[in-house]
Amino acid sequence: MKKVHNFSAGPGILPQSALDNSISAIQNFAGLDLSLLEISHRSKEYVAVMDEARKLPLEILGLDDSYECIYLQGGASLQFCMIPFNFLNNRAGYLKTGTWASNAVKEAGFFGETVTVASSEDKNFTYIPKDYVIPSGLDYFHYTSNNTIYGTQMKSIPECDAPLICDMSSDIFSKRIDASKFDMIYAGAQKNMGPAGATLVIIKKEMLEKISKKVPSMLDYRVHSKKESMFNTPPVFSVYCALQVLKWIQSVGLEEMERRNFAKQELLYNEIDTNEFFVGNTAVEDRSWMNATFVMKDDSMTDKFLSMCKDANISGIKGHRSAGGFRASMYNALPLESVQALVDVMKNFKP
Amino acid sequence: MKKVHNFSAGPGILPQSALDNSISAIQNFAGLDLSLLEISHRSKEYVAVMDEARKLPLEILGLDDSYECIYLQGGASLQFCMIPFNFLNNRAGYLKTGTWASNAVKEAGFFGETVTVASSEDKNFTYIPKDYVIPSGLDYFHYTSNNTIYGTQMKSIPECDAPLICDMSSDIFSKRIDASKFDMIYAGAQKNMGPAGATLVIIKKEMLEKISKKVPSMLDYRVHSKKESMFNTPPVFSVYCALQVLKWIQSVGLEEMERRNFAKQELLYNEIDTNEFFVGNTAVEDRSWMNATFVMKDDSMTDKFLSMCKDANISGIKGHRSAGGFRASMYNALPLESVQALVDVMKNFKP
Repeated sequence: MKKVHNFSAGPGILPQSALDNSISAIQNFAGLDLSLLEISHRSKEYVAVMDEARKLPLEILGLDDSYECIYLQGGASLQFCMIPFNFLNNRAGYLKTGTWASNAVKEAGFFGETVTVASSEDKNFTYIPKDYVIPSGLDYFHYTSNNTIYGTQMKSIPECDAPLICDMSSDIFSKRIDASKFDMIYAGAQKNMGPAGATLVIIKKEMLEKISKKVPSMLDYRVHSKKESMFNTPPVFSVYCALQVLKWIQSVGLEEMERRNFAKQELLYNEIDTNEFFVGNTAVEDRSWMNATFVMKDDSMTDKFLSMCKDANISGIKGHRSAGGFRASMYNALPLESVQALVDVMKNFKP
Repeated sequence: MKKVHNFSAGPGILPQSALDNSISAIQNFAGLDLSLLEISHRSKEYVAVMDEARKLPLEILGLDDSYECIYLQGGASLQFCMIPFNFLNNRAGYLKTGTWASNAVKEAGFFGETVTVASSEDKNFTYIPKDYVIPSGLDYFHYTSNNTIYGTQMKSIPECDAPLICDMSSDIFSKRIDASKFDMIYAGAQKNMGPAGATLVIIKKEMLEKISKKVPSMLDYRVHSKKESMFNTPPVFSVYCALQVLKWIQSVGLEEMERRNFAKQELLYNEIDTNEFFVGNTAVEDRSWMNATFVMKDDSMTDKFLSMCKDANISGIKGHRSAGGFRASMYNALPLESVQALVDVMKNFKP
């Protein structure tokens, strides 16, 4: 049992088995009497790690071999640039639901024409736009499944005739989804699937055939695919640790993970809605299961509540500067007990 | 004392203190009762890590505050793309001394005109070209200080009127250099200064002012500089571990590091030159202190020697497929005792 309840928005909490196995591999990797940090990424022992790390996400999501995984560096932010570099020829569509979604549109503008199909910027991204029409003939349609900063989450997958690309950085593997609806899914590892330093890209092989542009090697999905995610030295440790998280996710299963995540968010939002001192930031139907954002009805009490959380060993609860108040990030590895600890502090709050 | 003599070409051997401190931080970072892998990169404890990791390289190299450090992802290979993206307006010069140097030229060709000022490709990169003339008026001149695969190393800094950019991935911090002659130095961490996943860029601030192009944010040195290397989530663990290596390098000092590295290479090359069964691959005057490449005069004995090395707990000695034979990488953290162990096996070799 951890001493601290870790609600950090990212890098976020990881399962203890992933931490333990990572430490063990730094001490002695694969029985080689060498550290994971000091061995060739081309050694057969490490190639086996990469192979398994490329296979497991497909198994977990129920995807067949028309998809493949690669691990890249640079976080989701480098994907904001690589996606249009590879796929934007005429016009691409974006859904603007938060800070990262906005950054994705902005970077794409460097490479060609973008259409912001809908935006919730008018209300500081506190809801998910609905009833928008995605124009036909786009090179791709891009959206962000969960908005870490504002605490909203898409509850359905948009329908469109264009290839569908989704930034799932903050909710990948948190519940069951029909992953086969996507042409590309990507995620910076540091929220729900590992430490910082690795980015998972799951891509439909057909998408690689659609690339018609000349792209610098390091930014070209075809190159990384052809080289089996080893075009150059991969982020060895981050991929190893992500693999340990993936093994844990697989052992739990997405159905059970969804049940756990449902229970956690239900417990917290129920308290937010019934406690006289707190109010949620976002439209109820768009609330994120991963990042709950809320404020005190009387802002002058905020510091007192933060101080009570600190006394209860609750960490990482302060809201992002763009949203204010509080943010409780409840990633996969956060136990229900931690949410209960937070709810207890809320219940005990007296002005 | 390590059980295995680790001659891996990269990721390569690290000082034990860096491994121990990294494990300790995964268990409990900065006394927070949280793992280094699960805390916000914006926490004041981690910001202090990044600040120190940005300061130490300048101190070690004796550079003043007209320079700054940033940590990026994607290895040296992403720099092959970022350098021309930021700095190539008309024409850039490259010295082609090996695989990585060649990749750097190739990627730059995507962005504009390149001049290969000299090349040693005619003799499979077994020497460093000399007596070449660097044309004037280049946007920059780029070279690779040490060629990991072929085992050659530049022994002097080229003189030119263009900004000087150097890939020091495999020999940074291995000896004293006049770092003030460079406008930009970069290094993938995983050879001489840390684990894979972080790239150190040391850049003269004047260079940032010279950028006149529109560059995607993640590839723009100005953005990373302005955001103090935290534009997006940095490779938290890799930078932390690199900082532990930097502290060790600083405690040893470059003068002593040079003395140690001189002694190691002298011991090995002396054996190569006097042992009747072995021969060095490269021009004697261009031999790398970091990566010694050599073969058996009779190739049919190669497997036997590799097998003897294995029995003596010598790891990572097999040459790169482009060069064949053997490669002994003697990075900073490799003790003289390991080189002695290799030399002993060479001395004891009987056909």
